[in-house]
Amino acid sequence: MSTAATYLGNHTFALAEASTPAPAPGQVRIRVAFCGICGTDMHIFHGKMDARVKPPQIIGHEMSGTIEAVAADVPGWKPGDRVTVRPLDSCGTCPACRAGHSHVCMNLKFIGIDSPGAFQGSWCVPAKLLHRLPADLPLDQAALVEPIAVACHDVRRARLVAGEKAVVLGGGPIGVLVALVAQAAGAEVLLSEIDAGRRAFAESLGLRTIQSDPVAEVEAWTGGAGADAVFECTAAAPCAALMTKLARVRGRVVLVGIFTQPVAIDLFRVFWRELELIGARVYEAADFDQAISLAPRLPLDRLITGCFPIADMAGAFAAAPKGMKTVVACS
Amino acid sequence: MSTAATYLGNHTFALAEASTPAPAPGQVRIRVAFCGICGTDMHIFHGKMDARVKPPQIIGHEMSGTIEAVAADVPGWKPGDRVTVRPLDSCGTCPACRAGHSHVCMNLKFIGIDSPGAFQGSWCVPAKLLHRLPADLPLDQAALVEPIAVACHDVRRARLVAGEKAVVLGGGPIGVLVALVAQAAGAEVLLSEIDAGRRAFAESLGLRTIQSDPVAEVEAWTGGAGADAVFECTAAAPCAALMTKLARVRGRVVLVGIFTQPVAIDLFRVFWRELELIGARVYEAADFDQAISLAPRLPLDRLITGCFPIADMAGAFAAAPKGMKTVVACS
Repeated sequence: MSTAATYLGNHTFALAEASTPAPAPGQVRIRVAFCGICGTDMHIFHGKMDARVKPPQIIGHEMSGTIEAVAADVPGWKPGDRVTVRPLDSCGTCPACRAGHSHVCMNLKFIGIDSPGAFQGSWCVPAKLLHRLPADLPLDQAALVEPIAVACHDVRRARLVAGEKAVVLGGGPIGVLVALVAQAAGAEVLLSEIDAGRRAFAESLGLRTIQSDPVAEVEAWTGGAGADAVFECTAAAPCAALMTKLARVRGRVVLVGIFTQPVAIDLFRVFWRELELIGARVYEAADFDQAISLAPRLPLDRLITGCFPIADMAGAFAAAPKGMKTVVACS
Repeated sequence: MSTAATYLGNHTFALAEASTPAPAPGQVRIRVAFCGICGTDMHIFHGKMDARVKPPQIIGHEMSGTIEAVAADVPGWKPGDRVTVRPLDSCGTCPACRAGHSHVCMNLKFIGIDSPGAFQGSWCVPAKLLHRLPADLPLDQAALVEPIAVACHDVRRARLVAGEKAVVLGGGPIGVLVALVAQAAGAEVLLSEIDAGRRAFAESLGLRTIQSDPVAEVEAWTGGAGADAVFECTAAAPCAALMTKLARVRGRVVLVGIFTQPVAIDLFRVFWRELELIGARVYEAADFDQAISLAPRLPLDRLITGCFPIADMAGAFAAAPKGMKTVVACS
């Protein structure tokens, strides 16, 4: 038996004791240790994605845990193995999958949104989505591997190399992780954030922050050239207008924030400086591998600003928007 | 002596006989044979760029000609050599130049806009900007090397390779040249154009055209995948909204049209399909070399829809917007 938190719609979760099924062929059953709350989970919590999520549904996808059962046809895994899950269910047959871009499969199902997720004590998932966790990575911190993988993917999409200068717009959880991963890649990083509390937090992690006049500050910082890469992590229209002003000639602007509506972009600047605007979505297996290898070097203990038992989903979702990263202990 | 056509502002050129100066150090003097009318020249003609052009000014930059004098310090060129000019005057010291992107120099002067151009019989230019023309390329057609180089640059920015499928939005001179150069690169091309006359002209060149519902037509053409590359050559807001809908997962959208105002872009689609929006401006030396080598394989005789003597600049500028490419015989 284990506890499952089921999203019912309208800011409500129901707790229930659930039996622990045997894993189906190709699957393992995981004892979920921790599951973080993502911005997408917040959108779901506020009812904005009910059409896609179709409550009642167990959500959650930023998790860590320990294998407790393995289907007979699954090689390479055994009970007790510490793992995280790359929650992407690709079709394997669409043009994107056939071209090697299965992470942006045209029929992608996101596990924890489109199918049951990890806010439960026992979770059955396809073994092909497992990534092994090192023994010395605490499981609460390992729940951050998924958002770190997002940041690794964003930095890879930027083709960022050591010695380059990168500007990150937005100091939320993803912006801070992008800044930290970019630093780990050897780049110099400026984080632009309007909230003083978030700036102070980022500074306490050793990140350099700016606020007042990003264009002038980036010009001064780069000797008038502009930044090699800009990461837009806010999905705010003013930052969409700002991002093209910060990049150097041939600079790369990676679109991390999710703009749900068309937004005004200065295409003249894109033309004038031959910029690239680069879409980035989720991650590939290599990003998860890199995230796991980077995790011990990142201040993950500082990024976890709240930990709640699964019995207090209301408390966890109330705390999440106020802190950096909130995790739920699921078993 | 030679004739020069000087733009005076307000749709007016003045003709004058000018003496033929000796080329300064590093320069050659060219007997200009033909100079084409660019969309930018039309903007200048309509007074929209007077603040930058500062009339009176000799404009024109799509040219061909024959060297008639060479400064003593210039090696490798002699009177009689048939040439065209890459009209970019870079500073050589700004961050873009130092990074190897001198064609988008941060202090770029465009010869024929920011300094005297080729609507004159004798023109002195730096020898370093010369490109040699093959003996069998007629000089009227050679005046199209510059816009062909624009198209070569756009296709190169798209990283287009043989066998890929490309959509070109807009069937004006640049759109048609992009389509022809993309075809020459081995791509399959669809040209989308709303004007029936331009569609018929493009079809007569062997290009496949569409008009009614580009999204449905491109989906059908690509088996639901979307195009590998999209070239936006209209600078029209509806095409800015359309371009992201036509590209496949990880497709490249090259921004060829010059949007002078910010325009609404569907960044959700850029995120969802991990698109790249790529700025493209003018050309590099390699694009001129490629344009010259491609020119004999392109239907340039068909693209030249008007040829006027320099004594009839008014006639030439009246004809230019109605045809595909209008050239002026300058000597």
